[in-house]
Amino acid sequence: MASRKMSLDDTTNHTSNRYGENLAKLRGYRRDHSGPDRPDFSTIYARELLPQGSSELTGKFLKEVVDQLIEYIKQEQIPETKVLDFHQPHELREKLQLDITDKPVTLEQLLTDCQETLMYCVKTGHPRFFNQLSSGLDIVSLAGEWLTAAVNTNIFTYEIAPVFTLMERVILKKMRDLIGFEDGDGIFAPGGAISNLYAVNAARHKLAPDCKTKGMQSVSRLVMFASEHSHYSLRGAAAVLGIGTDNVIPVRCDQRGKMMPSDLESKVQQTKARGDTPFFVSATAGTTVLGAFDPLNAIADICDQYNIWMHVDAAWGGGALLSKKHRSLLEGVHRADSVTWNPHKLMGALLQCSALLLKHDGILESCNELKARYLFQQDKNYDLSYDTGDKAIQCGRHVDVFKLWLMWKGKGSIGLETQINLVYDLAKYFYEKIRDREGFEMVLEEPEFTNICFWYVPPRMRLMKDAAEKKQRLNQVAPIIKARMMECGSTMVGYQPLDDKVNFFRLVVSNAAVRRSDLDFLIQEIERLGKDI
Amino acid sequence: MASRKMSLDDTTNHTSNRYGENLAKLRGYRRDHSGPDRPDFSTIYARELLPQGSSELTGKFLKEVVDQLIEYIKQEQIPETKVLDFHQPHELREKLQLDITDKPVTLEQLLTDCQETLMYCVKTGHPRFFNQLSSGLDIVSLAGEWLTAAVNTNIFTYEIAPVFTLMERVILKKMRDLIGFEDGDGIFAPGGAISNLYAVNAARHKLAPDCKTKGMQSVSRLVMFASEHSHYSLRGAAAVLGIGTDNVIPVRCDQRGKMMPSDLESKVQQTKARGDTPFFVSATAGTTVLGAFDPLNAIADICDQYNIWMHVDAAWGGGALLSKKHRSLLEGVHRADSVTWNPHKLMGALLQCSALLLKHDGILESCNELKARYLFQQDKNYDLSYDTGDKAIQCGRHVDVFKLWLMWKGKGSIGLETQINLVYDLAKYFYEKIRDREGFEMVLEEPEFTNICFWYVPPRMRLMKDAAEKKQRLNQVAPIIKARMMECGSTMVGYQPLDDKVNFFRLVVSNAAVRRSDLDFLIQEIERLGKDI
Repeated sequence: MASRKMSLDDTTNHTSNRYGENLAKLRGYRRDHSGPDRPDFSTIYARELLPQGSSELTGKFLKEVVDQLIEYIKQEQIPETKVLDFHQPHELREKLQLDITDKPVTLEQLLTDCQETLMYCVKTGHPRFFNQLSSGLDIVSLAGEWLTAAVNTNIFTYEIAPVFTLMERVILKKMRDLIGFEDGDGIFAPGGAISNLYAVNAARHKLAPDCKTKGMQSVSRLVMFASEHSHYSLRGAAAVLGIGTDNVIPVRCDQRGKMMPSDLESKVQQTKARGDTPFFVSATAGTTVLGAFDPLNAIADICDQYNIWMHVDAAWGGGALLSKKHRSLLEGVHRADSVTWNPHKLMGALLQCSALLLKHDGILESCNELKARYLFQQDKNYDLSYDTGDKAIQCGRHVDVFKLWLMWKGKGSIGLETQINLVYDLAKYFYEKIRDREGFEMVLEEPEFTNICFWYVPPRMRLMKDAAEKKQRLNQVAPIIKARMMECGSTMVGYQPLDDKVNFFRLVVSNAAVRRSDLDFLIQEIERLGKDI
Repeated sequence: MASRKMSLDDTTNHTSNRYGENLAKLRGYRRDHSGPDRPDFSTIYARELLPQGSSELTGKFLKEVVDQLIEYIKQEQIPETKVLDFHQPHELREKLQLDITDKPVTLEQLLTDCQETLMYCVKTGHPRFFNQLSSGLDIVSLAGEWLTAAVNTNIFTYEIAPVFTLMERVILKKMRDLIGFEDGDGIFAPGGAISNLYAVNAARHKLAPDCKTKGMQSVSRLVMFASEHSHYSLRGAAAVLGIGTDNVIPVRCDQRGKMMPSDLESKVQQTKARGDTPFFVSATAGTTVLGAFDPLNAIADICDQYNIWMHVDAAWGGGALLSKKHRSLLEGVHRADSVTWNPHKLMGALLQCSALLLKHDGILESCNELKARYLFQQDKNYDLSYDTGDKAIQCGRHVDVFKLWLMWKGKGSIGLETQINLVYDLAKYFYEKIRDREGFEMVLEEPEFTNICFWYVPPRMRLMKDAAEKKQRLNQVAPIIKARMMECGSTMVGYQPLDDKVNFFRLVVSNAAVRRSDLDFLIQEIERLGKDI
C-alpha cells in the first residue's frame, strides 16, 4: 500500500487535468462574457421556458447546454485530456450539489450542474478508454439520439411513432439480410440481456405454448445450454423465466474459449436420458472476455439433430457481419433460430441499441401478445400489423432505431465495414507490439477479435521460481495498475480472472477514435504504473 | 364510408399544415442563406467529423441539427401547428428515403432526413395532444437527455458512471421518502412493465428463493391478484416469469374502477383452499383508462393478514404524491412492499423514466445477482456497494436518472406540485364543461384523476330508442372521429372499450403545455368531426 501511494504521488503530475481547466475557462466565459445576447440565467427559472414561457429563451438555454456538450465532445477527443477525474464515492458526493430542494434553482445553476456532471463523468469516447465493449461517441448517432429525445415518443404503435416504426422494419430487415435469414421478425430491446431473455422466452413458447397461460408447472423440466464463457444473462434469463439457473448447463470451452460441440452433444444426450427436455442452445459470437466465436455450423448440426432452438448471442460479434474480411467468423449464423446483436457495441451506435432477430415470423407476437385492447385497439384507421406493442414484453418502448438508422445511412455499409476493419487492425497492431515484449504474457495467442488479453508481469516478479506464489502475486497486479490508472485518469482498461487464470487485462478496441499512438501509450502507461509492484 | 370521406374533404382545409410550411422555410434557409460560416454539407461526409475529422465541423453539424430541433420544439407549441401529418404506412414509406445503401450519404442528406423525420413525427408535446399518459416535452429534461447521450455510458458500475450512480441513489431515496418507506432500495427500469416484472420477481424470490436456481418446478402453484382494470403488464410478468397468466386472478372493480377488497379476500381464500399459494397483490394507483385508485389501506390489511407481497402499480398515479392536495389518493402506499412509479408520466420527464421502489433492502441484489465476476470485479479501488449491476436483470443499463434529476432540481418539488395541480385543474375544467353539454355522456362522474372518460353521441343517435342498436352504433363513433382527427391532424385523443362499455374517449391531461383553450378546441373538434355520423 505504501509503494502504491508513492507511485501515485509520483504519477499524478504527469497528466494535468486539461478538461478541468477548459471547463473552468468555459465557466469564466459564461460569467464574464455575457454579451447583450446572453440572458442572465441566474435570474431565470425553468418555468420561464416553453411551454409556458418564452420560445426565444428556450432556444438560448438549449444552445448553451449544447455549447457545453460540444466543448465536452471536443475535449474528449484530445488524448491528453483526462479519461476521468476519479474520486471516491463519498468525496464525489461532497463535491456535487446533488440534493433536490423544494424550491427551484435557476437555469444558471442547472448549467453549472451540467458542467460539473460532465467534469466527473468517465469519458467513454476518449481515444484512451479501452474499458468496455461499448465505447466511442459517434457524432451522427448522437444527433439521432438528440432528435429522438426531442420527439419523445413511444414505438409501440404506428399511431404515435409512424416514422420510427417504418425505420425499425427497414433496419431489422437489413440485419436479417446480413445474418442470412430469408424471412422472420425482430425487435429492439433494452440491452443484450433482455434480447437474450426474449430469445429464451420465444423458444420456450415454441416448444410449450401452454406455459404462457399455465406456467412452468405445465411443462417437463426444460434445460438450456451455453458455454462456460457465455454471457451471464443466459443464466439471468433462466432465473427470471422460472427455468432456474441449475438448468443452464455450462458446456466446456476449448483452449481458445470456443464451445466444444462434442461436450454439447454428450450433455444433450445426458439430459434426454434423465428425462428432461433440452430446448435451447446459446452459441456465442464474440465472448465477453476472450472474444471467442463458437463453431456455429457444428452447433447447428446438433440443434438440428435433437430439435433444439439455436440462439446466437452475437451482441458483441454481430458487427463483424458487415466486414467481408471477418464475417466468416460467424459462418453458420443463418442456421440459428434467433440472434442477439447490439449495434451499440462494434458498430458504434449510442447506448442503448440492441436487437433480437428471429428466423420465424409470428412467434414474438404469439409469445408476448396479451390482447390489451384498451391500449392496442383493433378498429383503427391503418394496417395494424405495423403496431409492435403486442410483440414486446415492455409496454412503452424507447425508440432505439433512429440513432442507428441515421448513423448507418451516414456511413453506408461500406463506411461501417471500413471502421470495423480498422479496429481489427488496431487490435492486431497492439497484439503484435506486446506479444514478444518483455514483461507481457499473452492469455490467448493470435486472437480472432478485438479483445486482447494479457498479463503484465512487473520486473521483480519475472524471475520468481515459486509458480504458486507468482500466480498469487500476479493476481494483484492488474487491480493495482487499474486503480492507479483511474486515480491519475490517464487511461482505462478492464481486467478480470477467468477459469484458472488469475486477473489479466482485457483490452478492447471498438472505438473509432483510437489511433496506434494511443495503444503505444497504454503499453507505456502499464509499464510506468506497474514497474514498482 | 361515403359520409366519412365527405367529412374529411370538408375539414382538412380547416387546418393548414403550418409545420410543413415552416420546415420548407427552414430548408430554403439552409440552401439559400448559407453564408460564409455555413459549411457546404452537401460535399461533406460523416467521416469528416470527429473522431477522425474536424472538431469545428462537428460543432457546426451538431448545431445545425439542434437548430432544427429547436425550430421543431417551437412549432410544436403553436396550437395551430398540426399534431401530425398522417399518412398510411405504405404512403409514408414512399415519401421517406428509408433505405440504407452501401455508400454513405452526405451530411446535407442527413439533415434533410432529420427534417423529414420531424415533419412526419407525431407531436407528443403539442398542447392538443391528449392521446397518451406520457405527453409534453419538458425542456430541462430534454437538456438532461441530450447530456446523457453525449456522455454515452452505462449505469451498471460506479467505475464508468460515478455521477449518475450517486444521482440515482439521491433520487430513489427522494421517491421512497415521498412514498413513506423508511429504508429500502430501488432501480430505474426500461418502462413500467419491466418495473412491474422486477416486483413480481422480487416477491417470488422472497417467498421461494430456490426458484432462482431450481425453477418453478420447485415451488407450489403461485397465484397473483390484480384488478380487472390493472395494467396488462402484470399478466405479461406472469407469462414471462413462468407463473402463467391463468394464475393472475382478476379482482372485481366497483363502479368507479377501484378494486373491491371483499372480492380480493374471498379470492385469496379460495386460492388457499385449493392448496395454491397467493403471493402477490398488485394494487393500482391510477388505472390506465379510468384513472382509478384502488383502496390501498384495505388491500394492505388483507396482504398483512395473509402474508402476501403488496405491490402498488403507481406508474401513472405516483406523481400525485408530490401534491399535498391530491396525495391522499395514495393513502396507505407506505404499507406496500414495492411501488412502480414512472416519472415520464405525470411528472413530465422524458421517455423513458420508470422506477421500482422497494421497502426491503437487499432483495433486488439477492434476487438478480449472478456473481459475474468477470464483469463486476470485487477487488476494485472503491466501495463496491455503489455498483448496481448485480441488482439488475439487464446487464448494461441506460442512464434514465439524469433527465429526471435535472428537471426536478430545476422545478423544485414545489414546481412539480404546481404543475401536477395545474393538470388536475385543467382536467376538472374539461369535465365540468362537458358534463351537462348536449351530446356528451360521462363514463365516470366526478373523476379523481386527470383521465376524463366520455362518449360523444352524434345528433342523429341521441333520440334512438333501440338501446342495442344505439350501443352498437355508438361503438363506431369514437374510432371514426379519431380517424378524422388524425387525418386532418388537428388533435389526438385516445379511445377504447372497457368491460361492457362500448368505445369511449379517454382524455388525459398530463402535458404542462395544455391550456383551457386547447380543451375548448377539443370539444369543438369532436363535435365538428362527429356531427354527421
